[in-house]
Amino acid sequence: MEFTSRQIAELLGGRVEGDESTKVNRLAKIEEATEGAISFLSNPKYEHYLYSTGASAVLVNNSFSPKEPVSTTLIYVEDAYASLSFLLEEYNRMKTYSKIGLENPHFLSENATLGANCYVGAFAYIGSNCKIGDNVKIYPHVYIGDNVSIGSNSILYSGAKVYADCQIGAHCTLHSGAVIGSDGFGYAPLSDGTFKTIPQIGNVILEDHVSIGSNTTVDCATMGSTVIHSGVKLDNLIQIGHNVEIGKNTVVAAQTGISGSTKLGENCMIGGQVGIVGHITLADRTSIGAQSGVGGSIKVSGKAFSGSPAFDYKTNLKSFAVYKKLPQLMKRIEELEEKIISLTPVDLTK
Amino acid sequence: MEFTSRQIAELLGGRVEGDESTKVNRLAKIEEATEGAISFLSNPKYEHYLYSTGASAVLVNNSFSPKEPVSTTLIYVEDAYASLSFLLEEYNRMKTYSKIGLENPHFLSENATLGANCYVGAFAYIGSNCKIGDNVKIYPHVYIGDNVSIGSNSILYSGAKVYADCQIGAHCTLHSGAVIGSDGFGYAPLSDGTFKTIPQIGNVILEDHVSIGSNTTVDCATMGSTVIHSGVKLDNLIQIGHNVEIGKNTVVAAQTGISGSTKLGENCMIGGQVGIVGHITLADRTSIGAQSGVGGSIKVSGKAFSGSPAFDYKTNLKSFAVYKKLPQLMKRIEELEEKIISLTPVDLTK
Amino acid sequence: MEFTSRQIAELLGGRVEGDESTKVNRLAKIEEATEGAISFLSNPKYEHYLYSTGASAVLVNNSFSPKEPVSTTLIYVEDAYASLSFLLEEYNRMKTYSKIGLENPHFLSENATLGANCYVGAFAYIGSNCKIGDNVKIYPHVYIGDNVSIGSNSILYSGAKVYADCQIGAHCTLHSGAVIGSDGFGYAPLSDGTFKTIPQIGNVILEDHVSIGSNTTVDCATMGSTVIHSGVKLDNLIQIGHNVEIGKNTVVAAQTGISGSTKLGENCMIGGQVGIVGHITLADRTSIGAQSGVGGSIKVSGKAFSGSPAFDYKTNLKSFAVYKKLPQLMKRIEELEEKIISLTPVDLTK
Repeated sequence: MEFTSRQIAELLGGRVEGDESTKVNRLAKIEEATEGAISFLSNPKYEHYLYSTGASAVLVNNSFSPKEPVSTTLIYVEDAYASLSFLLEEYNRMKTYSKIGLENPHFLSENATLGANCYVGAFAYIGSNCKIGDNVKIYPHVYIGDNVSIGSNSILYSGAKVYADCQIGAHCTLHSGAVIGSDGFGYAPLSDGTFKTIPQIGNVILEDHVSIGSNTTVDCATMGSTVIHSGVKLDNLIQIGHNVEIGKNTVVAAQTGISGSTKLGENCMIGGQVGIVGHITLADRTSIGAQSGVGGSIKVSGKAFSGSPAFDYKTNLKSFAVYKKLPQLMKRIEELEEKIISLTPVDLTK
Repeated sequence: MEFTSRQIAELLGGRVEGDESTKVNRLAKIEEATEGAISFLSNPKYEHYLYSTGASAVLVNNSFSPKEPVSTTLIYVEDAYASLSFLLEEYNRMKTYSKIGLENPHFLSENATLGANCYVGAFAYIGSNCKIGDNVKIYPHVYIGDNVSIGSNSILYSGAKVYADCQIGAHCTLHSGAVIGSDGFGYAPLSDGTFKTIPQIGNVILEDHVSIGSNTTVDCATMGSTVIHSGVKLDNLIQIGHNVEIGKNTVVAAQTGISGSTKLGENCMIGGQVGIVGHITLADRTSIGAQSGVGGSIKVSGKAFSGSPAFDYKTNLKSFAVYKKLPQLMKRIEELEEKIISLTPVDLTK
Repeated sequence: MEFTSRQIAELLGGRVEGDESTKVNRLAKIEEATEGAISFLSNPKYEHYLYSTGASAVLVNNSFSPKEPVSTTLIYVEDAYASLSFLLEEYNRMKTYSKIGLENPHFLSENATLGANCYVGAFAYIGSNCKIGDNVKIYPHVYIGDNVSIGSNSILYSGAKVYADCQIGAHCTLHSGAVIGSDGFGYAPLSDGTFKTIPQIGNVILEDHVSIGSNTTVDCATMGSTVIHSGVKLDNLIQIGHNVEIGKNTVVAAQTGISGSTKLGENCMIGGQVGIVGHITLADRTSIGAQSGVGGSIKVSGKAFSGSPAFDYKTNLKSFAVYKKLPQLMKRIEELEEKIISLTPVDLTK
């Protein structure tokens, strides 16, 4: 997508100083910008970059007046930083929702329904009885099993996989390689040492505004539903076990694993590479530090934990500080033992 | 799939009390069931749910008699719990093996062979010289490279990838995004700081009844085979390095990594997010706690380990208990040091 | 691919003793080889295997003379080990680059360009304005978004995904399920507890000779580029956050995660399952032990670290040695406390 400085200025209600026909097709930082990029100057600390920038156009505040000659096109706006955020949003919206229509070949089951303004990329697969809302973007190689519903404005990037019977809400994003609804890990040991597979016949429900990162896996429930409530954001390569429930607006960083039947509260912040055992409950607004291992329920809301197994965050910091000095501590104990011996009276009666 | 209460009763050798034509299409817990679901009551503790359940039908024991009026259809059977397990199995079998035939477009190399009752989903790819057994289910977007063999009754869900020359046994399950046979991570450092790629020309062998979770990766051997023996169950997002061998019926939880050339014994239980270094051996029936790091061979079978690096499970628990009190321990040592000084006689000769 | 012993000998400048027409189609270790395999004998320690090997042909040094009758075909060469390496390379090159041409159906946008000798597998997708170099191998189910460039001799295995606007260098390898350019994990908390998505409009740049393992994810920059410099090797299931930069020839083992905006130096060695926090810098030639957590910048190059949080590798080993003995240490402190009490004079004035 390409725009002239004049079009940008009109969009932002601004004024151009310089060549109104300069074309821009991307956003960039003022110190890294090259031809075709539009940048912004808000913090006076970066003003010196303005005089040497490669940007084709730069947003500046109405209150700004250059101290040196400027070769790039300037677009004067009320608030350069806010205008940039606005442009970012617009650019992102156009980029994300611009694809419309059906590419061939695709596979759309006869009794599946598609809303208005959808995109179905080549090689995408939509199974029987699927209900796809308006403005849903289904990229190439996406697989949607039978009986799946997807709410409006959701985006499934190339290669996302949704098993049969799952429900995806509105405004959800599934990145490439995300797997929704694969079998939970349930096996019953038999007396001969082999394992019997426990049928996993439940599904996954993603409510609205849920984001699932690349290659993240969310297992279906053994029976019932694994539920990811609205507003939850999962980063890449996360594992969510069967029958897990994640409360509204909880955020989980990359490579974390949550075992079966565990329930996370709302607005929790879970760091990267955390492990959480099965069948426990975490209270609302719990924070877990990266690489921690949570082995039991957390009942009081709003607390921070770290370590493996995890305990109170600050206490852990203190224990770790001592851990780093353990060899010296050992030496001090040995010295104490020697001194004690030297102080102990010799028993002359023996 | 939909059944009447009468059909269910006939399948189970039971007797209907209520409307024989009630239709059910899924299984659910008695407290969560809604219209169209069939549930069960076995434990008397849950009897009160029977009188308010939304289930369209409920399995009960022949010995049961309700104490209050019941509005749902009851199906009397010898053992309600066992009958539910039976229904679960049947439902799962039907769900899993119901797909038959070839969807278009698919890619089947001329000299590949397909057994009876296979399913090949749209956009699935089957390379040259592949031999696919009876009743194999190949979902959309599955990739099967050249010279691959797959035993009967195996299921490859959408997007599973099998590199050329690998062998998959019978009754195996590969979930979405599983990658079998990608190159092992082998690089030889050169004097200029760059790395030379060591050719990885081996393959992967999965024996029978092996399950591979979503987005789990199993690298091919440098030469020879990476071998996953029969009955092994791997959860999601696991990494198996080149030339690894995993013994029969060993179970590995999510996000664990096993480095190159390591050999695991039979019937081991490996927790989630465990790391195991390369070139070591673990004895049969070894248990490794979640998030542990195994740095050396384990020679005695049937032992439990935890920690990073891992050591005896119980000793580790004791060490960790002291770790949490390290700041207090430090204080006690400081107090001892002060007391010792106060006890030490002053040397008056100085 | 199948060759006669005579063809192999000609390729290696060697001499056949035995049947020149024996056919071989793979390489194998002398102790594991079966019919159709070629093997080698270099170390005299393994000579006894020669007399019972199932290999159809074995490479031996010109200086070697068998002490017992040999039933397999021998190929005499100057250096059997070097000849095997040469064969390995040739075999690998043929295996990797043998695919040429376009399989149907594929999706190639009208204004995309393909170099000479490319392979485009069935169901591969190449978006608008893509520029694909010579000899690039694009396996089935690969997705290449709009405006992507890929340098010559790169290989994208089945199911690799490259988002729009990314740049892939020459001689790169992307294994199955690798995701390049998915959105960075950026969310701004709002006062009502929900999160606003921060647009991620940057891209990913892979320079030349970069290897990306199966199901590894590399997020695009928020603005600008996430950069993986030339010669970097990433193993499977690794997470690279937005705006990360990885220096030349750095090697990262499986399941490691690197958070947003962190910069790794050149020739670093990062172990498996390591976590590195965001916005820090690691000096060149830094080594990080497996399962470590790096929480701060490392400024001096060439040092080794381990632990979570990570600190000096050797000091950590010493601390861990004491950690394992903490319960005994606790006991020694208790004994000291008792002895101190017994030594402290009773205050008779009280």
